[in-house]
Amino acid sequence: MKKLFLLLFLFSSLSSSFAQFKNDSVLIRKIYDEALSRPYAYRWLEHLCKNIGGRLAGSPQAAAAVEFTRQIMDSLQLDRVYLQEVMVPHWVRGEKETGRILSKTKGTMDVRVCALGNSVGTGEAGISAEVVEVKNFEELEKLGRAKIENKIVFFNRPMDPTKIRTFEAYGGAVNQRGSGASQAAKYGAIGVIVRSMTTSLDDYPHTGALNYTLNLPKLPAVAISTVGAEMLSKMMQEEPGLRVYIRTNCRFYGDKLSYNVIGEIKGSTHPEEIIVVGGHLDSWDTGQGAHDDGAGCMQSIEVLRIIKSLNIQPKRTLRAVMFMNEENGLRGGVKYAQEAEKNKESHIAALESDGGGFSPRALGISMERNGYEQAKKWTSLFEPYGVLLTKGGGGADISPLRNQGVCLIGLNPDSQRYFDYHHTEIDTFDKVNQRELQLGAAAMTALIYLVSEYGLRP
Amino acid sequence: MKKLFLLLFLFSSLSSSFAQFKNDSVLIRKIYDEALSRPYAYRWLEHLCKNIGGRLAGSPQAAAAVEFTRQIMDSLQLDRVYLQEVMVPHWVRGEKETGRILSKTKGTMDVRVCALGNSVGTGEAGISAEVVEVKNFEELEKLGRAKIENKIVFFNRPMDPTKIRTFEAYGGAVNQRGSGASQAAKYGAIGVIVRSMTTSLDDYPHTGALNYTLNLPKLPAVAISTVGAEMLSKMMQEEPGLRVYIRTNCRFYGDKLSYNVIGEIKGSTHPEEIIVVGGHLDSWDTGQGAHDDGAGCMQSIEVLRIIKSLNIQPKRTLRAVMFMNEENGLRGGVKYAQEAEKNKESHIAALESDGGGFSPRALGISMERNGYEQAKKWTSLFEPYGVLLTKGGGGADISPLRNQGVCLIGLNPDSQRYFDYHHTEIDTFDKVNQRELQLGAAAMTALIYLVSEYGLRP
Repeated sequence: MKKLFLLLFLFSSLSSSFAQFKNDSVLIRKIYDEALSRPYAYRWLEHLCKNIGGRLAGSPQAAAAVEFTRQIMDSLQLDRVYLQEVMVPHWVRGEKETGRILSKTKGTMDVRVCALGNSVGTGEAGISAEVVEVKNFEELEKLGRAKIENKIVFFNRPMDPTKIRTFEAYGGAVNQRGSGASQAAKYGAIGVIVRSMTTSLDDYPHTGALNYTLNLPKLPAVAISTVGAEMLSKMMQEEPGLRVYIRTNCRFYGDKLSYNVIGEIKGSTHPEEIIVVGGHLDSWDTGQGAHDDGAGCMQSIEVLRIIKSLNIQPKRTLRAVMFMNEENGLRGGVKYAQEAEKNKESHIAALESDGGGFSPRALGISMERNGYEQAKKWTSLFEPYGVLLTKGGGGADISPLRNQGVCLIGLNPDSQRYFDYHHTEIDTFDKVNQRELQLGAAAMTALIYLVSEYGLRP
Repeated sequence: MKKLFLLLFLFSSLSSSFAQFKNDSVLIRKIYDEALSRPYAYRWLEHLCKNIGGRLAGSPQAAAAVEFTRQIMDSLQLDRVYLQEVMVPHWVRGEKETGRILSKTKGTMDVRVCALGNSVGTGEAGISAEVVEVKNFEELEKLGRAKIENKIVFFNRPMDPTKIRTFEAYGGAVNQRGSGASQAAKYGAIGVIVRSMTTSLDDYPHTGALNYTLNLPKLPAVAISTVGAEMLSKMMQEEPGLRVYIRTNCRFYGDKLSYNVIGEIKGSTHPEEIIVVGGHLDSWDTGQGAHDDGAGCMQSIEVLRIIKSLNIQPKRTLRAVMFMNEENGLRGGVKYAQEAEKNKESHIAALESDGGGFSPRALGISMERNGYEQAKKWTSLFEPYGVLLTKGGGGADISPLRNQGVCLIGLNPDSQRYFDYHHTEIDTFDKVNQRELQLGAAAMTALIYLVSEYGLRP
């Protein structure tokens, strides 16, 4: 008799979990249908890109983007839409930058450069000096002050094309952009040129932030396009002592008041448990910030829209967060985590989309709250959509939440094209495919729904 | 003692299969390194697209493409490069097509149309008639001769946006293009307009082949862009009895001599077992045939180049085949299979790439020769590259080989963007990403190598 009960219990628990799986699978199909049939994220992104454009923290466009996303969220009848104050740095590029190769044999040749974000300018007159090429900081150190002083250092290590995920190749090259200026300053250089961070050979200089080390001179630094870098390197071989000229007039103004924009749906049974989905609203000024990261922002709002439109009552509280100032300060991400801690909020998971609006390949889930282990049982729910659940994930804006034991999740889209556009004038709306963007939003919604429904027990 | 032998045997066989796996894994990494570091396929594709362009069977461009691919393969020091004669249909679009909506209230409005491949022309004067919209053949049948006779039928069923793989959505809509003209002819229509086969809303008419049913009148048929289709449909609702005008002067000329282009590396230990890798060299005339299917052709030659460049001696014979006339006849694929049968060749596997040069997601493998069952043990070799081995696959050009029991394999790239470009003037080189194309070639090379090394036992 006891055995019979046990069997019945097992059977009923199996069949109830099967029924649950079936319900979830039906609901996720509805989520995808909604995302693919009514492409709101794509239409919002068109407006953000074409009517507002590039929106560096502190710029009028950033303010417009704050207002635009607040208005979209207001229209969705969420439980709460609010702005969270953030003081942001206000760096301005100024006039178009000048780069010139001063060849004795070939004359003066213009090359396309752009100031790295947060760089000081060269001053009105610009700077000209002999250029020294290095591939890494070890080479720089070997050359030392004797060979570097009063020169312009040219960092020319390409991204490794053999990496399958381009973000790995980026990780292997980006220290030249982030720290090259201060490394060169150690040996008395007067300026820095950095090969653009891209897997493609093109003539667009790719900007991006640098960080100056305290107590070292701040050198003006520019990115040169990969085509320009190849040419410069070749000319340096042909003409020892080759000189270059750079002129930029970028500068910082005082910090400005800006905002994270937050929309919320209150949880029906565990309102105190919060799940964040977000992207960063600021972008570089050079393009429209379409893939980086207008896409992630619009997808995050789309998650809430789809939830509302399917009449899902989430058990836990969902927040879409448009983080401000990821590109050159991360002030929004830091502020959000500070406020969460101060207000004793309990975040269980945070999902960021900041890898571009490309075809989603995986959702990467971190180990906090045992998140990956609990989520991987949902693997087969994502199979029909070609999305893997993989171990490890996150995003810059949500990373400050890690200390609070929040499970961090990243949408991982196909990465092959990302660095073609990254931080350039061609990161524009026309580079985004409607279906790829919407499929990303659908995958995010499906996971957010599951986490909200079943929670993540620590 | 017997047990000990058995254990030793097991151990040595396990460790040898482990060593084999390790060797294969190292070699596949080299294949990817070569493909990503030296992007020959991408450079060849640039030439094919920009210097030759669209190359419909029978056209001078198709002849140029035959010569170009022969020359590339000649340069690779293969064991044999040769042309296989194929008589192909020679359909010519003629002058640019005209489409007009003749509104009584809004006047005459031009809309973009293009003749469907293999269509007859309208004659110099063009045709004008009242237009009748239907979504499918059932609606057409219900309307019958009473409502259709002397009218122009407008097939306006969109591709289903909720399908995850766009090829499924294409499969669900393409009968309008393939058979719509003859279906409409049954009821006395005088012409046909078909909504373009695309998942996007754009203003490019997407061409593609139709097939006339024997013994029915051949109606002139055109594709209208999706934007045009939406507008026409809306205007028809506003203005019952709306008329349209179409003018095309496409026509067939007599069949022409053309070629499949074939390059071969002889197998070192089983030269009699043949493995084909290919794509189709012809393309529509409207664009450059970049994704469809210049990409697949260049990838197929790249497979042989990589094999040669890594000094791999394949055990079985490898052939890259550029099939002619997939788009409007399939004569090349049929001829290749006929010749294989006539010459008593033994093909074990054939891999086609004809889904565009996008990021590879899977290699689909058919059940012939138990192919999928044998190949799936290689799954983990492809994991680092994000490529799945899935059941079922093939391609139009290799499909005639199925009768000979050949295992058919298809490269399945991400399909979201394919129908944005398919059969239009924007299927051009700039839509192809170097890394995506080369990753496809690498995946193909890896599988071709494994099949060549281990064979497929029937």
